[in-house]
Amino acid sequence: MIEKVLRINALYDFYQPLLTRRQQEYLDLYYLNDFSLGEIAERCGVSRQAVYDNLKRAESALESLEEKLQLCRKYEARRQVMTLLREQTAGLGKNERERFDLLLGQLENLD
Amino acid sequence: MIEKVLRINALYDFYQPLLTRRQQEYLDLYYLNDFSLGEIAERCGVSRQAVYDNLKRAESALESLEEKLQLCRKYEARRQVMTLLREQTAGLGKNERERFDLLLGQLENLD
Repeated sequence: MIEKVLRINALYDFYQPLLTRRQQEYLDLYYLNDFSLGEIAERCGVSRQAVYDNLKRAESALESLEEKLQLCRKYEARRQVMTLLREQTAGLGKNERERFDLLLGQLENLD
Repeated sequence: MIEKVLRINALYDFYQPLLTRRQQEYLDLYYLNDFSLGEIAERCGVSRQAVYDNLKRAESALESLEEKLQLCRKYEARRQVMTLLREQTAGLGKNERERFDLLLGQLENLD
Protein backbone atom coordinates (compact mmCIF):
# COMPACT_ATOMS: atom_id res chain seq x y z
CA MET A 1 0.00 0.00 0.00
CA ILE A 2 2.83 2.37 0.87
CA GLU A 3 4.36 1.64 -2.53
CA LYS A 4 1.11 2.44 -4.26
CA VAL A 5 0.80 5.74 -2.35
CA LEU A 6 4.35 6.72 -3.30
CA ARG A 7 3.73 5.76 -6.92
CA ILE A 8 0.50 7.74 -7.19
CA ASN A 9 2.07 10.73 -5.45
CA ALA A 10 5.04 10.66 -7.84
CA LEU A 11 2.80 10.48 -10.91
CA TYR A 12 0.53 13.15 -9.50
CA ASP A 13 3.50 15.51 -9.22
CA PHE A 14 4.00 15.29 -12.96
CA TYR A 15 0.48 15.05 -14.32
CA GLN A 16 -1.73 16.91 -11.87
CA PRO A 17 -2.56 19.74 -14.32
CA LEU A 18 -3.95 17.24 -16.82
CA LEU A 19 -6.52 15.77 -14.44
CA THR A 20 -10.02 17.13 -13.95
CA ARG A 21 -10.69 19.32 -10.94
CA ARG A 22 -12.70 16.55 -9.29
CA GLN A 23 -9.95 14.01 -9.84
CA GLN A 24 -7.47 16.43 -8.31
CA GLU A 25 -9.76 17.03 -5.34
CA TYR A 26 -10.25 13.35 -4.57
CA LEU A 27 -6.56 12.51 -5.00
CA ASP A 28 -5.60 15.43 -2.75
CA LEU A 29 -7.96 14.28 -0.03
CA TYR A 30 -7.23 10.57 -0.27
CA TYR A 31 -3.49 10.47 -0.92
CA LEU A 32 -2.16 13.75 0.42
CA ASN A 33 -4.53 14.32 3.35
CA ASP A 34 -5.22 10.68 4.23
CA PHE A 35 -9.03 10.98 4.20
CA SER A 36 -11.00 7.74 4.01
CA LEU A 37 -13.41 7.08 1.13
CA GLY A 38 -16.30 7.63 3.52
CA GLU A 39 -14.93 10.96 4.71
CA ILE A 40 -14.47 12.19 1.14
CA ALA A 41 -17.99 11.02 0.26
CA GLU A 42 -19.45 12.92 3.19
CA ARG A 43 -17.44 16.05 2.52
CA CYS A 44 -18.32 16.11 -1.19
CA GLY A 45 -21.92 14.99 -0.83
CA VAL A 46 -21.59 11.93 -3.06
CA SER A 47 -21.66 8.18 -2.48
CA ARG A 48 -18.65 6.24 -1.26
CA GLN A 49 -18.86 4.22 -4.48
CA ALA A 50 -18.69 7.40 -6.59
CA VAL A 51 -15.54 8.47 -4.75
CA TYR A 52 -14.03 5.02 -5.23
CA ASP A 53 -14.83 4.97 -8.96
CA ASN A 54 -13.44 8.44 -9.49
CA LEU A 55 -10.25 7.63 -7.62
CA LYS A 56 -9.74 4.46 -9.69
CA ARG A 57 -10.29 6.45 -12.88
CA ALA A 58 -7.83 9.12 -11.73
CA GLU A 59 -5.20 6.49 -10.95
CA SER A 60 -5.73 4.88 -14.36
CA ALA A 61 -5.42 8.29 -16.00
CA LEU A 62 -2.11 8.89 -14.22
CA GLU A 63 -0.73 5.49 -15.28
CA SER A 64 -1.92 6.04 -18.84
CA LEU A 65 -0.21 9.45 -18.98
CA GLU A 66 3.01 7.94 -17.66
CA GLU A 67 2.82 5.18 -20.23
CA LYS A 68 2.56 7.80 -22.96
CA LEU A 69 5.00 10.46 -21.74
CA GLN A 70 7.34 8.60 -19.34
CA LEU A 71 8.03 11.81 -17.40
CA CYS A 72 8.41 10.04 -14.07
CA ARG A 73 10.68 7.28 -15.38
CA LYS A 74 12.94 9.73 -17.21
CA TYR A 75 13.08 12.03 -14.20
CA GLU A 76 14.25 9.22 -11.96
CA ALA A 77 16.85 8.13 -14.49
CA ARG A 78 18.13 11.71 -14.75
CA ARG A 79 18.38 11.90 -10.95
CA GLN A 80 20.67 8.86 -10.98
CA VAL A 81 22.97 10.46 -13.53
CA MET A 82 22.92 13.71 -11.54
CA THR A 83 24.11 11.79 -8.47
CA LEU A 84 27.05 10.45 -10.47
CA LEU A 85 27.82 13.96 -11.74
CA ARG A 86 27.80 15.27 -8.17
CA GLU A 87 30.27 12.56 -7.22
CA GLN A 88 32.52 13.64 -10.07
CA THR A 89 32.47 17.30 -9.08
CA ALA A 90 33.55 16.32 -5.54
CA GLY A 91 36.92 15.39 -7.00
CA LEU A 92 37.52 18.78 -8.66
CA GLY A 93 39.37 21.79 -7.31
CA LYS A 94 37.32 24.31 -5.31
CA ASN A 95 36.71 26.87 -8.07
CA GLU A 96 35.84 24.32 -10.72
CA ARG A 97 33.67 22.41 -8.30
CA GLU A 98 31.70 25.54 -7.42
CA ARG A 99 31.10 26.40 -11.06
CA PHE A 100 29.92 22.88 -11.83
CA ASP A 101 27.73 22.62 -8.75
CA LEU A 102 26.08 25.92 -9.58
CA LEU A 103 25.16 24.71 -13.06
CA LEU A 104 24.06 21.29 -11.82
CA GLY A 105 21.84 23.03 -9.28
CA GLN A 106 20.26 25.08 -12.07
CA LEU A 107 19.66 21.90 -14.01
CA GLU A 108 17.96 20.24 -11.05
CA ASN A 109 15.73 23.24 -10.50
CA LEU A 110 14.51 22.94 -14.08
CA ASP A 111 13.57 19.30 -13.64
CA MET B 1 4.90 31.19 -40.66
CA ILE B 2 8.28 29.46 -40.25
CA GLU B 3 8.19 30.34 -36.56
CA LYS B 4 4.75 28.84 -36.19
CA VAL B 5 5.86 25.65 -37.94
CA LEU B 6 8.89 25.34 -35.67
CA ARG B 7 6.77 25.99 -32.60
CA ILE B 8 4.14 23.39 -33.52
CA ASN B 9 6.83 20.86 -34.40
CA ALA B 10 8.57 21.42 -31.06
CA LEU B 11 5.35 21.03 -29.10
CA TYR B 12 4.37 18.01 -31.17
CA ASP B 13 7.64 16.30 -30.19
CA PHE B 14 6.61 16.48 -26.55
CA TYR B 15 2.87 15.95 -26.65
CA GLN B 16 2.19 13.79 -29.69
CA PRO B 17 1.10 10.74 -27.63
CA LEU B 18 -1.63 12.80 -25.97
CA LEU B 19 -3.32 13.82 -29.23
CA THR B 20 -6.01 11.79 -30.96
CA ARG B 21 -5.01 9.63 -33.90
CA ARG B 22 -6.76 12.02 -36.30
CA GLN B 23 -4.99 15.05 -34.83
CA GLN B 24 -1.69 13.24 -35.21
CA GLU B 25 -2.49 12.30 -38.79
CA TYR B 26 -3.38 15.85 -39.85
CA LEU B 27 -0.39 17.39 -38.07
CA ASP B 28 1.93 14.82 -39.65
CA LEU B 29 0.61 15.58 -43.10
CA TYR B 30 0.42 19.35 -42.74
CA TYR B 31 3.53 20.18 -40.71
CA LEU B 32 5.91 17.30 -41.32
CA ASN B 33 5.02 16.39 -44.90
CA ASP B 34 4.00 19.83 -46.13
CA PHE B 35 0.62 18.77 -47.55
CA SER B 36 -1.91 21.54 -48.27
CA LEU B 37 -5.31 21.57 -46.57
CA GLY B 38 -6.88 20.56 -49.87
CA GLU B 39 -4.52 17.64 -50.32
CA ILE B 40 -5.22 16.37 -46.80
CA ALA B 41 -8.97 16.76 -47.36
CA GLU B 42 -8.79 14.73 -50.57
CA ARG B 43 -6.59 12.04 -49.05
CA CYS B 44 -8.80 11.65 -45.97
CA GLY B 45 -12.14 12.02 -47.73
CA VAL B 46 -13.30 15.01 -45.66
CA SER B 47 -13.92 18.68 -46.37
CA ARG B 48 -11.13 21.24 -46.41
CA GLN B 49 -12.96 23.03 -43.60
CA ALA B 50 -12.97 19.88 -41.46
CA VAL B 51 -9.21 19.54 -41.91
CA TYR B 52 -8.73 23.20 -41.03
CA ASP B 53 -10.91 22.93 -37.90
CA ASN B 54 -9.15 19.79 -36.73
CA LEU B 55 -5.72 21.31 -37.27
CA LYS B 56 -6.70 24.41 -35.28
CA ARG B 57 -8.01 22.23 -32.46
CA ALA B 58 -4.83 20.16 -32.48
CA GLU B 59 -2.70 23.32 -32.30
CA SER B 60 -4.79 24.63 -29.42
CA ALA B 61 -4.46 21.30 -27.64
CA LEU B 62 -0.67 21.46 -27.99
CA GLU B 63 -0.52 25.01 -26.62
CA SER B 64 -2.83 24.09 -23.77
CA LEU B 65 -0.67 21.10 -22.84
CA GLU B 66 2.43 23.27 -22.90
CA GLU B 67 0.72 25.84 -20.70
CA LYS B 68 -0.03 23.11 -18.19
CA LEU B 69 3.18 21.05 -18.25
CA GLN B 70 5.83 23.43 -19.65
CA LEU B 71 7.84 20.52 -21.04
CA CYS B 72 9.10 22.47 -24.03
CA ARG B 73 10.10 25.56 -22.06
CA LYS B 74 11.94 23.53 -19.42
CA TYR B 75 13.67 21.44 -22.05
CA GLU B 76 15.01 24.51 -23.78
CA ALA B 77 16.17 26.00 -20.48
CA ARG B 78 17.94 22.74 -19.62
CA ARG B 79 19.65 22.76 -23.00
CA GLN B 80 21.09 26.20 -22.24
CA VAL B 81 22.52 24.98 -18.94
CA MET B 82 23.89 21.88 -20.66
CA THR B 83 25.74 24.12 -23.12
CA LEU B 84 27.36 25.95 -20.21
CA LEU B 85 28.27 22.62 -18.60
CA ARG B 86 29.87 21.47 -21.85
CA GLU B 87 31.91 24.66 -21.91
CA GLN B 88 33.08 23.94 -18.37
CA THR B 89 34.15 20.40 -19.16
CA ALA B 90 36.26 21.69 -22.04
CA GLY B 91 38.57 23.24 -19.44
CA LEU B 92 39.15 19.98 -17.55
CA GLY B 93 41.96 17.46 -17.97
CA LYS B 94 41.37 14.67 -20.49
CA ASN B 95 40.27 11.93 -18.07
CA GLU B 96 37.98 14.14 -16.05
CA ARG B 97 36.54 15.66 -19.20
CA GLU B 98 35.75 12.24 -20.64
CA ARG B 99 34.00 11.12 -17.46
CA PHE B 100 31.92 14.31 -17.35
CA ASP B 101 31.07 14.24 -21.02
CA LEU B 102 29.94 10.63 -20.78
CA LEU B 103 27.53 11.50 -17.96
CA LEU B 104 26.32 14.67 -19.68
CA GLY B 105 25.64 12.62 -22.79
CA GLN B 106 23.57 10.18 -20.74
CA LEU B 107 21.64 13.09 -19.31
CA GLU B 108 20.91 14.50 -22.77
CA ASN B 109 19.71 11.13 -24.01
CA LEU B 110 17.18 11.03 -21.18
CA ASP B 111 15.75 14.43 -22.07
